[in-house]
Amino acid sequence: MKTVKKLYYGAAYYDEYLPYDRLTTDMELMKKAGISLIRIAESTWSTWEPKDGVFDFTHLHRVLRASKDAGIDVIVGTPTYAVPPWLARKYPDLLAVTHDGPQLYGHRQNMDLTHPGYLLHAQRIIRRLMEEVQPYPHIIGFQIDNETKPYDTCGPRVQQMFTEYLKKQYPDIDAFNQQYGLNYWSNRVQDWADMPDIRGTINGSLAAEFEQFQRNLVTKFFRWQAEIIREYLRPSQFITHNFDFSWRGYSYGYQPDVNQYDAAQYLDIAGSDIYHPGEDHLTGAEIAFGGDLTRSLKRDNYLILETQAQGNHGWLAYPGQLRLQAFSHLASGADCVEYWHWHSIHNAIESYWKGILSHNLKENATYRECMTIGADFKRLSDDLIHLKKRNRIAMIMSNRSNTAFRYFPAGTIDDQNTIVRWLYDAFYRMNLEMDLISDTQTDQTVLADYDLILLPSVYSMTKSLTVQLDQYVKNGGHLLAAMRSAFADEHLKIYADDQPYGLTGCFGMTYDQFTLPGGTSLQSDAVPFAKKPVLSDWMELLIPADENTETLVRYDHPYWKEYAAVTHHAYGNGSAAYLGCFFDADSLEAVLRTLMERFGIAVPKEHFPLIRKEGVNQNGAAVTYFFNYSGAPVNYTVPYDGTELTKHVTFHAQDTVRLEAWDFHILRS
Amino acid sequence: MKTVKKLYYGAAYYDEYLPYDRLTTDMELMKKAGISLIRIAESTWSTWEPKDGVFDFTHLHRVLRASKDAGIDVIVGTPTYAVPPWLARKYPDLLAVTHDGPQLYGHRQNMDLTHPGYLLHAQRIIRRLMEEVQPYPHIIGFQIDNETKPYDTCGPRVQQMFTEYLKKQYPDIDAFNQQYGLNYWSNRVQDWADMPDIRGTINGSLAAEFEQFQRNLVTKFFRWQAEIIREYLRPSQFITHNFDFSWRGYSYGYQPDVNQYDAAQYLDIAGSDIYHPGEDHLTGAEIAFGGDLTRSLKRDNYLILETQAQGNHGWLAYPGQLRLQAFSHLASGADCVEYWHWHSIHNAIESYWKGILSHNLKENATYRECMTIGADFKRLSDDLIHLKKRNRIAMIMSNRSNTAFRYFPAGTIDDQNTIVRWLYDAFYRMNLEMDLISDTQTDQTVLADYDLILLPSVYSMTKSLTVQLDQYVKNGGHLLAAMRSAFADEHLKIYADDQPYGLTGCFGMTYDQFTLPGGTSLQSDAVPFAKKPVLSDWMELLIPADENTETLVRYDHPYWKEYAAVTHHAYGNGSAAYLGCFFDADSLEAVLRTLMERFGIAVPKEHFPLIRKEGVNQNGAAVTYFFNYSGAPVNYTVPYDGTELTKHVTFHAQDTVRLEAWDFHILRS
Amino acid sequence: MKTVKKLYYGAAYYDEYLPYDRLTTDMELMKKAGISLIRIAESTWSTWEPKDGVFDFTHLHRVLRASKDAGIDVIVGTPTYAVPPWLARKYPDLLAVTHDGPQLYGHRQNMDLTHPGYLLHAQRIIRRLMEEVQPYPHIIGFQIDNETKPYDTCGPRVQQMFTEYLKKQYPDIDAFNQQYGLNYWSNRVQDWADMPDIRGTINGSLAAEFEQFQRNLVTKFFRWQAEIIREYLRPSQFITHNFDFSWRGYSYGYQPDVNQYDAAQYLDIAGSDIYHPGEDHLTGAEIAFGGDLTRSLKRDNYLILETQAQGNHGWLAYPGQLRLQAFSHLASGADCVEYWHWHSIHNAIESYWKGILSHNLKENATYRECMTIGADFKRLSDDLIHLKKRNRIAMIMSNRSNTAFRYFPAGTIDDQNTIVRWLYDAFYRMNLEMDLISDTQTDQTVLADYDLILLPSVYSMTKSLTVQLDQYVKNGGHLLAAMRSAFADEHLKIYADDQPYGLTGCFGMTYDQFTLPGGTSLQSDAVPFAKKPVLSDWMELLIPADENTETLVRYDHPYWKEYAAVTHHAYGNGSAAYLGCFFDADSLEAVLRTLMERFGIAVPKEHFPLIRKEGVNQNGAAVTYFFNYSGAPVNYTVPYDGTELTKHVTFHAQDTVRLEAWDFHILRS
Repeated sequence: MKTVKKLYYGAAYYDEYLPYDRLTTDMELMKKAGISLIRIAESTWSTWEPKDGVFDFTHLHRVLRASKDAGIDVIVGTPTYAVPPWLARKYPDLLAVTHDGPQLYGHRQNMDLTHPGYLLHAQRIIRRLMEEVQPYPHIIGFQIDNETKPYDTCGPRVQQMFTEYLKKQYPDIDAFNQQYGLNYWSNRVQDWADMPDIRGTINGSLAAEFEQFQRNLVTKFFRWQAEIIREYLRPSQFITHNFDFSWRGYSYGYQPDVNQYDAAQYLDIAGSDIYHPGEDHLTGAEIAFGGDLTRSLKRDNYLILETQAQGNHGWLAYPGQLRLQAFSHLASGADCVEYWHWHSIHNAIESYWKGILSHNLKENATYRECMTIGADFKRLSDDLIHLKKRNRIAMIMSNRSNTAFRYFPAGTIDDQNTIVRWLYDAFYRMNLEMDLISDTQTDQTVLADYDLILLPSVYSMTKSLTVQLDQYVKNGGHLLAAMRSAFADEHLKIYADDQPYGLTGCFGMTYDQFTLPGGTSLQSDAVPFAKKPVLSDWMELLIPADENTETLVRYDHPYWKEYAAVTHHAYGNGSAAYLGCFFDADSLEAVLRTLMERFGIAVPKEHFPLIRKEGVNQNGAAVTYFFNYSGAPVNYTVPYDGTELTKHVTFHAQDTVRLEAWDFHILRS
Repeated sequence: MKTVKKLYYGAAYYDEYLPYDRLTTDMELMKKAGISLIRIAESTWSTWEPKDGVFDFTHLHRVLRASKDAGIDVIVGTPTYAVPPWLARKYPDLLAVTHDGPQLYGHRQNMDLTHPGYLLHAQRIIRRLMEEVQPYPHIIGFQIDNETKPYDTCGPRVQQMFTEYLKKQYPDIDAFNQQYGLNYWSNRVQDWADMPDIRGTINGSLAAEFEQFQRNLVTKFFRWQAEIIREYLRPSQFITHNFDFSWRGYSYGYQPDVNQYDAAQYLDIAGSDIYHPGEDHLTGAEIAFGGDLTRSLKRDNYLILETQAQGNHGWLAYPGQLRLQAFSHLASGADCVEYWHWHSIHNAIESYWKGILSHNLKENATYRECMTIGADFKRLSDDLIHLKKRNRIAMIMSNRSNTAFRYFPAGTIDDQNTIVRWLYDAFYRMNLEMDLISDTQTDQTVLADYDLILLPSVYSMTKSLTVQLDQYVKNGGHLLAAMRSAFADEHLKIYADDQPYGLTGCFGMTYDQFTLPGGTSLQSDAVPFAKKPVLSDWMELLIPADENTETLVRYDHPYWKEYAAVTHHAYGNGSAAYLGCFFDADSLEAVLRTLMERFGIAVPKEHFPLIRKEGVNQNGAAVTYFFNYSGAPVNYTVPYDGTELTKHVTFHAQDTVRLEAWDFHILRS
Repeated sequence: MKTVKKLYYGAAYYDEYLPYDRLTTDMELMKKAGISLIRIAESTWSTWEPKDGVFDFTHLHRVLRASKDAGIDVIVGTPTYAVPPWLARKYPDLLAVTHDGPQLYGHRQNMDLTHPGYLLHAQRIIRRLMEEVQPYPHIIGFQIDNETKPYDTCGPRVQQMFTEYLKKQYPDIDAFNQQYGLNYWSNRVQDWADMPDIRGTINGSLAAEFEQFQRNLVTKFFRWQAEIIREYLRPSQFITHNFDFSWRGYSYGYQPDVNQYDAAQYLDIAGSDIYHPGEDHLTGAEIAFGGDLTRSLKRDNYLILETQAQGNHGWLAYPGQLRLQAFSHLASGADCVEYWHWHSIHNAIESYWKGILSHNLKENATYRECMTIGADFKRLSDDLIHLKKRNRIAMIMSNRSNTAFRYFPAGTIDDQNTIVRWLYDAFYRMNLEMDLISDTQTDQTVLADYDLILLPSVYSMTKSLTVQLDQYVKNGGHLLAAMRSAFADEHLKIYADDQPYGLTGCFGMTYDQFTLPGGTSLQSDAVPFAKKPVLSDWMELLIPADENTETLVRYDHPYWKEYAAVTHHAYGNGSAAYLGCFFDADSLEAVLRTLMERFGIAVPKEHFPLIRKEGVNQNGAAVTYFFNYSGAPVNYTVPYDGTELTKHVTFHAQDTVRLEAWDFHILRS
């Protein structure tokens, strides 16, 4: 496995965007701030190739020379995620036709990435770029494209590819009609030539299969670019990618449009960009979630290739927050924190997505805080790089289940990530760290690594995975599922059997009815709710199989009180619990605390806003971070004798230590 | 008039949608539950004709044979409301071009139902189907299409038809311009060839005429299908249709896109589907409204061809509610209650619109309650079938007025059904039952049947109808109009005269100004308001003609207090009242109680949630239903000595009887 | 400068819209009401030319003859803002292609006003109309088109014109790329033939330049029409135009789509239409704003060519309000108040935008109040016409800054007019009258007329204007800027320098960071806030240069309290103040009162709802209006001995006089 050699502190840099030549000044300012890495080139095709076949790498060489002189390493991105105007003009069908119709030139990430003309010219510019950068020894790696997604490409040619893909899977067209239930509303296709425009379909199964097909296009695209780049790669250089997340004004959950686990197999090191709320809204949850996911892609350390310096309007870090954020990334296993971006931009759509420097391009409050981080990264690199984590809990990510929520919402919840984060955030606040694993790569070997597996409404589940999970619990594992898990197969065809499909024995429970909660609440002898739980969107009427199933929580409602809301069931050598409804976060924590007892999993005594993250460093020492995600001081208890690295003082086990507002400590054994 | 022979309890059944063969099991489960009718075939063209001219009626015959063996009768629907993919491919212009542009294949009900290719192939499949079903004696009737509407078809060919339609009406194009006021904004059309795309018009009159033209297309379509079916019909068989309603997440009001009264003349028995809120939101108002409307279409008993079993998410009936609903339909005059549908569906858009059986296709709580209903329907058929109602009140439905509210809203009210239901629901809560009659079929003969006619903001009214209504009141009838009634003619041209047009004498009142109420309230010596009335959206400044007009209510406002808000006027042998503004439901009931006194109409002492419905059965006995639409017990007073049919006990007049939560009684004299 | 000869009271009149011939009746009713002017013809091309080349001026001559007989003067509008159906049919590309795609026929104001076919036919109908009206001596002037705007025309031909326009500005395409920052996201254009569809751009600078180009098209259109009309114009006749405003359900702020100052140079007299909230929501602010703007266009008296009689639903004037409104227009410098319109319309989209007469076309409450106004206009014409105002304050209007807010919003504020009105309305309530001047016509000569210049977030500012403003303050002027002023150049390229660009010396302050306020409030020793100020959307972290800069207000926030929120700085012979954030209106008034002290500007003791406006009449007498914009009486102090004109009584200085609800007084010295 390739790794980086030191803890990198970096920024994206765009010499070609700057309003005047200030390369020397910028390099000096970077050095002074401890910036050790820049990322360049990933969106500037029209600069390198302003006309078809006319190349101009002036800016590239300027920056590479200057950074080499300044001792700053470089990641070079291929510029393929934004096409030049001449290319869009040359191939009028190059921009994607999507569910919203044909796209116009201007935006990035709206081409048809299967277009032969696009691929031809993309290959040429990648090869030319790789040739140009050969002489520079300080290029440590390459980034494939940027935040690649299928951009909902679904023009006629792509749809023809989709029909071929289906034909290959279903030599018998009757089997196809049966699997997708196409007799419904007269949608039966008896001749592949009759396949209608997928954009009109009312069949969620077919629509979901098209999304899976689109995700496959992305995986192929990764393989294709990686193969080209590897022809030029030096052994010391790596390939990475800047994965992004589902977006709610900030990085929220798992990216529905890409199977990142599949795509990551073509990379040497995983990378991602994490943007998150700031100021009073900074909680660290997105840093943790995005970090846990990126780390899990290749089960190794990763790079934060973009995160906010000043960032979007309303994210201006309070004093100390920028430091807190940077070290939070390291505590999740990052080996690099790189800002988007060095300088604010003076034209176009991202002018208010501010970099370290403001538009006047001078030192400012943000820059001054960066200087302290750069110095600490350099000083503590040996202690903090390559932090290895050994989590006992894993949550299963599922692209198909995410798609399912869009076509089959649970009440108002039309994004499975709402459930993913509902569970994840509760564990985060309770300081139970976890890995995020893929439903398509989960087998008994993977499962065996964990004490507890979480199913965040994994609606779409193969029969094979239900068998694996059943066996896992029999073997002694614990399973915790949220409502709707294992409801439909991989084609979103609902199982015509008792739910949760294949796991009724494991959960010791079944149900066949569900409704909106209205004013329903929860009642429990086992769980001490601090206040009356508030339900919304979804409730299943769970029927325990018999007295071996513990009804942990039941509904508080005149008619539904006969049904269970949360169950727990000892099964084989393990146990399985099921959450049949969606409710408020505090009540969820109360339920989880009781369940962790049942599972025999210890819950740390630290609780948000005090966040504790830990691992083992490259020298085999334990490293424990304590973060205060609040504007008021908090105390924590030192877990073992060791050195606090930011202040380089010795702490003793059981000492009570005060953390100031938005401050953090790093304890090394 | 054709009728059914017994009270039917049924479900839609789709053998071709099921994930595996379970026909025998389903028939057994149906028989056990007392299901006596299934509806089949209405949306499965692509099953019967998977390729152009290739027919396969395997599923049809399977189901017909099995149902015959099980003693379950059948209604067969023509499959024309959802076209197969090959047909859409064969005629690229077969799907409707609408105000939203050309439609894509996938959804049902989006074809151009005037397309010659559609009609050609629809005729062929109907004829083939009718031939196939000839041998089966247990087919009691046929359903034309399903929820037919014009689907906003307005492609170039249809618009050309519209121009021809106008030309025929207006041989003099100047008259056309004058009627529609086309000089406005330079829209004058002096040559029919200049007729612009109707989709761009800003002329509500022209847009409304186009909608009328679209409704006429639907009426023609009914005639066309009925004529084909009648060629094959046995004398004992009937033709019906499943009419639907305007939709607000459930069946809300009169369907604006179809003149159901016109269409119904081609049917033998009227039918409809009623979906309504459930659980705590179940009031029975939609069952009553939809029933009153369907019954009024042919002034006879009707079939509920679809209603919810488990239905949409959040409608899961509490124990007892499913029974309450079924008998509420009967109490409005239904002779059949049929669920949509027997089994839940495992793929596509309606998977969460659940049937009697859940996705596991096993007996469940819903099924068990159905069993009790099925048994009661069978046992009580002779007593409850063909219930005849004799209502003293009628409300006038008006497609054109509904259209008018979309182009000329009253404040935020852009659907006349808001007013329709505002009035209807108040009468429903007061247990004053009514008929719902058509503005296009109302003459003195019809009016003479009633003591009170309601005008729910019948904005568009022909001069002829104003004359009829004036005469009706002179003859001793009572008239109650809500604001904006009789404001414009049948082309939505506002009458250039005193409003309400043609009825100022009748109402003894006029007005020429109106505004938003803001904080205006109402004051009255005649009406005891329990709380301060809350107005919204619309208020007219009514000017009583003289002291013969009673100002029942006036405005509570510093400047508008000089004007009347509600008036009553004795006129000829009758009287007429007018509501000049829109206000809260409780205050409306208070006003109506006072008005009923003026009209000499007795208001029952029962009030919602206790609902009373009555009629005379086929044996001439009085039948009175009492429904408790609440989760708490209520008492009622027995009106006459008789037998309570559900428990078969004798009740005596003036007994006080307790109705449990969501329970009902049926008293037969 | 041309002027009108008397105070006009008028209405738009459409003989061709009326449902029957009532010309004689209308003229009599008008005379009786004191209507002295009608505006005709501006939207009736299809009446004058029902077919291509077939002309019919029957209605025109009827109205001109009848009005002449009635002694009512006429303004004739060219009918070019609404095209006939035959013209749209003749040129299928005549209707504009916009960002929303190709437009459909029906609406007015949606043609491509650069289309050669449109211009050809428009010229012909204008010339024919001008020839027809020659004989009529009582036509006092002509209105060019109506509310002309570019209608977002951006079809291929117009975009080609835009590319030519850019080419002319940038002979060096590299300079073009540099100015617009097109290297960003690979948008560089190296060959003009590659220019992509502007509708797809993500470059706010380029989009803004296209909007500037569209505004230029409008200016050219004015010149073109004016030149044609002048060929026929008698010396006594004038050319005017009916400018409109940005729209929020009523006339709100400066029209973003037109540079009205540029366009006005082709007019003799400026005109506009002002629509405003009514009833309890009537404040007079829109009348004042629209009036100040229209008066400033040519720095002279103006015509109100349209304002509401009954107007839109919810604007029905309380008794007295119609009078209050009419004289409010005069007090801002109007020489004419003309209603849209005489009669309500019986078909189409504006049927509920009611005129003086309601749909029954009879005398009503509105008409009766008009009669009193007509009489007063006639009686007081000599005193009230040509009121000259001499304001000491001016606010700078900037089309480009308005565009900027759409592409670069401040929090949720995506319309600069929010800031314009935030400032304007505070001054209005404090009875500080102002002029509204153009950023493109502001030089030292203009500035020298004023004591105080307001910059309402003038985001886009040329370097040259920053120099002018700096000099103005040095010369003794006062400057008050709201946040974001002088942030970007005329191409919306953010200045890569300290902000506010070019004015940091003047303001004695700079900043480079800004954020969302969240719960931030304000604190101040200098400003007595009545309640805790509430911030929203935007806050800049202002850094005073040194102790010479007064921090008038600072932030109330744990971390941002180190920064100033409002500063004041003595500079040269003047001073400059800066508002760094957006906050509630009451707190703004408190800040402004303190600032007016610093500026040495006296704030009148009258305050809204008592509004005072003043000027000098044509006879040199002072005229002061006092308006009561409320439903409760208010008192005011008479400023000087004079005659109250509405009641023709003598008032003495320092008398306390009572104004009834919605009443007004006019004092003449």
